[in-house]
Amino acid sequence: MQESVSTAGASRRPRISDVRVTPIAFRDPPLLNVVGVHEPWALRSIIEVETEDGRIGLGESYGDLETLANLAAAQTRLVGLDPYDTNGLLSRVYESVTGIEFTGQKFPSAGDKALASAFGAFEVAFLDLQGQIAGLPLYQLLGGAVRERVAYSAYLFYKFGRHKDDPGYPADEWGEALDHPQIVEQTRKMIDAYGFGSIKLKAGVFEPDFEIESLRALRRAFPNHPLRIDPNGGWSVDTTRRLMPQFDGLLEYLEDPVNSLDEMGEVASFSTLPLATNMVTVAFGHIPKTVRLGAVQVILSDHHYWGGLRATQALAHYGRVFDMGISMHSNSHLGISLAAMTHVGMTIPNLAYACDTHYPWQVEEVVVGGRDVFKFEAGSLAPPPGPGLGVRLDRSALAALHRQYLDCGIRKRDDAKEMRKYKPDWSSVRPRF
Amino acid sequence: MQESVSTAGASRRPRISDVRVTPIAFRDPPLLNVVGVHEPWALRSIIEVETEDGRIGLGESYGDLETLANLAAAQTRLVGLDPYDTNGLLSRVYESVTGIEFTGQKFPSAGDKALASAFGAFEVAFLDLQGQIAGLPLYQLLGGAVRERVAYSAYLFYKFGRHKDDPGYPADEWGEALDHPQIVEQTRKMIDAYGFGSIKLKAGVFEPDFEIESLRALRRAFPNHPLRIDPNGGWSVDTTRRLMPQFDGLLEYLEDPVNSLDEMGEVASFSTLPLATNMVTVAFGHIPKTVRLGAVQVILSDHHYWGGLRATQALAHYGRVFDMGISMHSNSHLGISLAAMTHVGMTIPNLAYACDTHYPWQVEEVVVGGRDVFKFEAGSLAPPPGPGLGVRLDRSALAALHRQYLDCGIRKRDDAKEMRKYKPDWSSVRPRF
Repeated sequence: MQESVSTAGASRRPRISDVRVTPIAFRDPPLLNVVGVHEPWALRSIIEVETEDGRIGLGESYGDLETLANLAAAQTRLVGLDPYDTNGLLSRVYESVTGIEFTGQKFPSAGDKALASAFGAFEVAFLDLQGQIAGLPLYQLLGGAVRERVAYSAYLFYKFGRHKDDPGYPADEWGEALDHPQIVEQTRKMIDAYGFGSIKLKAGVFEPDFEIESLRALRRAFPNHPLRIDPNGGWSVDTTRRLMPQFDGLLEYLEDPVNSLDEMGEVASFSTLPLATNMVTVAFGHIPKTVRLGAVQVILSDHHYWGGLRATQALAHYGRVFDMGISMHSNSHLGISLAAMTHVGMTIPNLAYACDTHYPWQVEEVVVGGRDVFKFEAGSLAPPPGPGLGVRLDRSALAALHRQYLDCGIRKRDDAKEMRKYKPDWSSVRPRF
Repeated sequence: MQESVSTAGASRRPRISDVRVTPIAFRDPPLLNVVGVHEPWALRSIIEVETEDGRIGLGESYGDLETLANLAAAQTRLVGLDPYDTNGLLSRVYESVTGIEFTGQKFPSAGDKALASAFGAFEVAFLDLQGQIAGLPLYQLLGGAVRERVAYSAYLFYKFGRHKDDPGYPADEWGEALDHPQIVEQTRKMIDAYGFGSIKLKAGVFEPDFEIESLRALRRAFPNHPLRIDPNGGWSVDTTRRLMPQFDGLLEYLEDPVNSLDEMGEVASFSTLPLATNMVTVAFGHIPKTVRLGAVQVILSDHHYWGGLRATQALAHYGRVFDMGISMHSNSHLGISLAAMTHVGMTIPNLAYACDTHYPWQVEEVVVGGRDVFKFEAGSLAPPPGPGLGVRLDRSALAALHRQYLDCGIRKRDDAKEMRKYKPDWSSVRPRF
């Protein structure tokens, strides 16, 4: 791959003049999952790609050191690119992350999640710039809307009432949720506030039979809301086999009961309901084996690690060809990610399920207008108005969140370490059950 | 799918105000293939998509009655669309061609070639408009160049010296090619004029051993040019098995030796070289079975029937994931198609082979500037300069070519019927050998 391809007809357009990556930390509640509990601060990175004429395209990605190192390795190499040149972006990110020349012949078969994450972080910012230049909302640039709004789901967690160590901010408004009535109360509060029409329970925390009791309590309280459970690979194949009869008629889909693609293939052989994943099929290189095993019926897209918004559309294309439904995964995130998720969700015909979002669990923002930018109605969002992503960076908020990153001391998410503050003998071995 | 999706942020942009589809006929030499011989006139359709502010996006597709009917069924429904709304285009073409509501959940598994052809014809024109609006050459709009020029191959045909019936125009400049020296002479003339660096022989015309003798003569005359042969499914599996040892070290790839995907799977089980196709895997719905059988190693893309330029990029994505090379197929075509092929070819990293084109066999044009617009250098082309496709319609040429369509009497390509003028007992049964 040449560094620069000059061709007839390539008019001189404003090029990228600067790329900034700012790590941030924001408040996060003590949410439980199979590996432990959320620390008091969630890390993200805010990506700014600036053009010679002063436009700024935004992206949001992970904030761990590995991601920051990959973004840092690529960022200076992007100066001089045209914001439309996502192929140039791909080759430069590929070469900076892997250290080998990009030929484009073949995707790395497994190890491309880090690469795709770094590419995707910048690609969203490039597309934001393209939308600004063209005066088009991103969903229009991406092919146009196939729906009026994008539906999200209520993403429930078992949780502690407060963090073990005082993080220097007040406890969250959600309270403790360690039993069925508390989970039902959490759900009611979230649905009252956001109007979500479907429910996902993060699981793998307690004995599966206890968690299924929570599901039954939710079914009684919300008889018309589709339910999902996600043990994050916390169960063995045998446990999943034993539990399977209880899911019939209860679940919309079963997400990541087991922890490997081979095991998902085993579960698929006896499963009576669709299997979803954001853990065992997380890169295009995994699709051939996924298809061969018939292991997955619902792919959870996530532009952060599938490689951006066009890659998310490509993944949906695979879903149509290989008869897999498309839904959307989420980590703790702020509004730049939420805007990007919503724009791409507007354009995917076969987005057949409400998307996951952690957004209700956050209280801080980094975009101008804060959390009021995102007005959920009946659990769904329209993209923020205006060209590109439709969000702008609140620089004082960015500075404050960056200050929190510097001060909090966390540099890599470690839910197991946090859990050992509560349970000193905790280990995040999987399968747990 | 709603007819119209209105959302916050959708600014009022010029909409599509008129769509015109003009069938044309242009001179075509008497080229031989497995089903017969080219008629004196090749049919195409020229698509114009006009916006309220007077921009015209161009497309070029097949000119047979079925295609024209599909284009006609869709064209009036496109008025009012935003040229960026290719999702709206897809739903409207889908509904007009199939008569059923578009839900987007799944691709039709097999019968979508006609649908994809109709969509692709308009999609190129939509993208041409997007490029014009943004002031971007199409290859930049499609993600940017990964190469300086797109390589094409010398596409050789056995041929008669002249058409059986006088078509009212002089015989072509290429002369007869019914034996090895004539094929070598044809090749030398074509390579002298265009500089092609690889050679494809259209086959399935004579006994395979005779055609392999032609390949050997070409190998002697052009020792460094990769060679391909394409019998268009004219051979049986057993014949292909018998011939296989002779191809070792002689061919770059073997294109469509047999006539079905199942047979290609059989051939793949003993083939010692890559198998290419534009016949047995021609729609995304065919990919799962193709992959399952391991039947194809090189997919010949063709934006005309895979569904446009973004679909061609999507196909290349499948090639990267499933380890299939990408090349490009061609029918008789003019400059709008050649421009589109070249633009998309600029953007596909894993376009690993020189593309097929019939362009040297044509003498007429429909774009302003005529055939001089396309300057082959060392067998390769840069896209025409300027925004969008970089070509404009020559209205007097269009009128003349449309007149030829009206006068020639051909409404559906029928190479077998034409061949019966030479050989009254001809039938295009396959496998022929």
